[in-house]
Amino acid sequence: MKIFLVGEAAAHAGKLAARLACGADIMPLPREAAHAADHDHLIGAGDVVVSLRFRRPGAAPPFRLLHVPGAGLDAIDMGSVPAGATVCNVYEHEIPIAEYVSLAMLEWQIRLRELASRFDARSWSDLYRNRPPHAELYGKTLLLIGLGRIGGAIATRARAFGMRVLAVDAHARPPAGLVDGLFAPAQLDAALPLAGFVVISCPLTEDTRGLFNARTLARMRRDAVLINISRAEIAREEDLYAALRDGIIAGAFLDVWYRYPKAADDQVPPSSLPFLDLPNVVATPHASAWTVDLPWRRYAFIAANIDRLASGQPLANVVRAPLE
Amino acid sequence: MKIFLVGEAAAHAGKLAARLACGADIMPLPREAAHAADHDHLIGAGDVVVSLRFRRPGAAPPFRLLHVPGAGLDAIDMGSVPAGATVCNVYEHEIPIAEYVSLAMLEWQIRLRELASRFDARSWSDLYRNRPPHAELYGKTLLLIGLGRIGGAIATRARAFGMRVLAVDAHARPPAGLVDGLFAPAQLDAALPLAGFVVISCPLTEDTRGLFNARTLARMRRDAVLINISRAEIAREEDLYAALRDGIIAGAFLDVWYRYPKAADDQVPPSSLPFLDLPNVVATPHASAWTVDLPWRRYAFIAANIDRLASGQPLANVVRAPLE
Repeated sequence: MKIFLVGEAAAHAGKLAARLACGADIMPLPREAAHAADHDHLIGAGDVVVSLRFRRPGAAPPFRLLHVPGAGLDAIDMGSVPAGATVCNVYEHEIPIAEYVSLAMLEWQIRLRELASRFDARSWSDLYRNRPPHAELYGKTLLLIGLGRIGGAIATRARAFGMRVLAVDAHARPPAGLVDGLFAPAQLDAALPLAGFVVISCPLTEDTRGLFNARTLARMRRDAVLINISRAEIAREEDLYAALRDGIIAGAFLDVWYRYPKAADDQVPPSSLPFLDLPNVVATPHASAWTVDLPWRRYAFIAANIDRLASGQPLANVVRAPLE
Repeated sequence: MKIFLVGEAAAHAGKLAARLACGADIMPLPREAAHAADHDHLIGAGDVVVSLRFRRPGAAPPFRLLHVPGAGLDAIDMGSVPAGATVCNVYEHEIPIAEYVSLAMLEWQIRLRELASRFDARSWSDLYRNRPPHAELYGKTLLLIGLGRIGGAIATRARAFGMRVLAVDAHARPPAGLVDGLFAPAQLDAALPLAGFVVISCPLTEDTRGLFNARTLARMRRDAVLINISRAEIAREEDLYAALRDGIIAGAFLDVWYRYPKAADDQVPPSSLPFLDLPNVVATPHASAWTVDLPWRRYAFIAANIDRLASGQPLANVVRAPLE
């Protein structure tokens, strides 16, 4: 068995090798191998392809497993995948995203950066006598818009802090005790005024595009904070900017943006509006899941899945079973 | 029944009144009432005194309950308390302290403040293409020096983040699943090298004074972070400064200090050494438990306890039962 790592996946060959128990050869392929047949003669019927992308004009070689080294399948054309192949994906990003959201909520309440910056040795005695108190997460209400894998990881942590956890989700069936209240999407208006923190943790779909707009933002509490770690377009750009500028909501942690560079030398701003100049916005560069640990954990998962394939065990995270 | 709020407790009369169900009168007394007999003629045999301090040269009036509105009993002289009175205290500060420690660990790993400060609209495209990855809490090891109420609250949250939790404690009997390993104080040297985060969450006693010194700090990992939310003197001032300056440990979050102002116009520095100038120290002004929510929660607890007294129910948090 050979394992072909396509494009950026090739950079993680060492991580895969470190965890793989079966003795398969690991081989890099250029990014173009996801779309063109130039390397297909190398790929045999028992082999594995690891690639974020797969889309072919013609027939692909009959490999056994396409392992996507991420969660998103938008760059995979299932029609291009050989009928006999399994397609698997891998998550694990819910962990760093839930850590980022926890940090955002704690920082909003405690303001560690302000506590530390106000503290100097000369004014210590006066500061100690006149310390302004901060706030707690305990007992506050969190509303998750979307209770999938990411929402669930956030909920687990929020519960440990003694928060009341609510969620809006059409399909979720959370385990007992994970949330205190579950709302259908049609009940969003009733849920929004309940929460001090609202986290957008749903995918971008035609139903969620623009879900946060002037009307729904005005349903939030004036002291509420919006945290978006999903896709910017779930909140209407102009409406979110106006709500933050005008104090309709208290603040936001925004990790996702309205414009991304496409080509290698593209220069675009993250938004056409100056979100980064608003004092109540903490803006980060799509970094919430961007950790040193994530690719290690993902390639450990992929290695375990390939070992299962090699020993005939059922695979984990199958998103498409063989068609024949 | 009357309830006397002595000194700074008097500032919380509104909080107590908001939660008290029995119809007792709430009356302020000056700070001196903790130490002098001038107001004793007001205090009757069925009454309650709420005070952080109590120490008398002579006999005190025969009240029923001394409720300390905090955890510490160092300013209570039990010999001065009437023999027939119960003494209760109140905690709740473990919640904000555990939130502070969680924020400290998350901020060290994720560095939200750096992520946000590096992000500007003009360089967004280049930054997005070259985002430096940060770290996760998940899977990292936390060592708690002391597994009392505060250590337990920290452990609960750390477990939700998927950390490995170890503790050094002579007496703790933690519930199943709270910690992954429990060490006796004599095993400190074996425990220290295991952890990426070490939290001082034990009281200052003759056994813990100077527990962190040049020798024990050198047992910690070079990439480890020390968090002190207890008392500064548990870490030797010169040794901790040198360890941080010389990279013996990676960093520290220090909320407690070596020198505090005593009188109202006292001006002292927090340490004789320039801890605040070290780039790997996050210094805060004894603020970890200093929240808006804490006195509300404490006076709600005190109100419930006084209501129990009024209706003849057993009291909570009894630190000394009546002697007769």
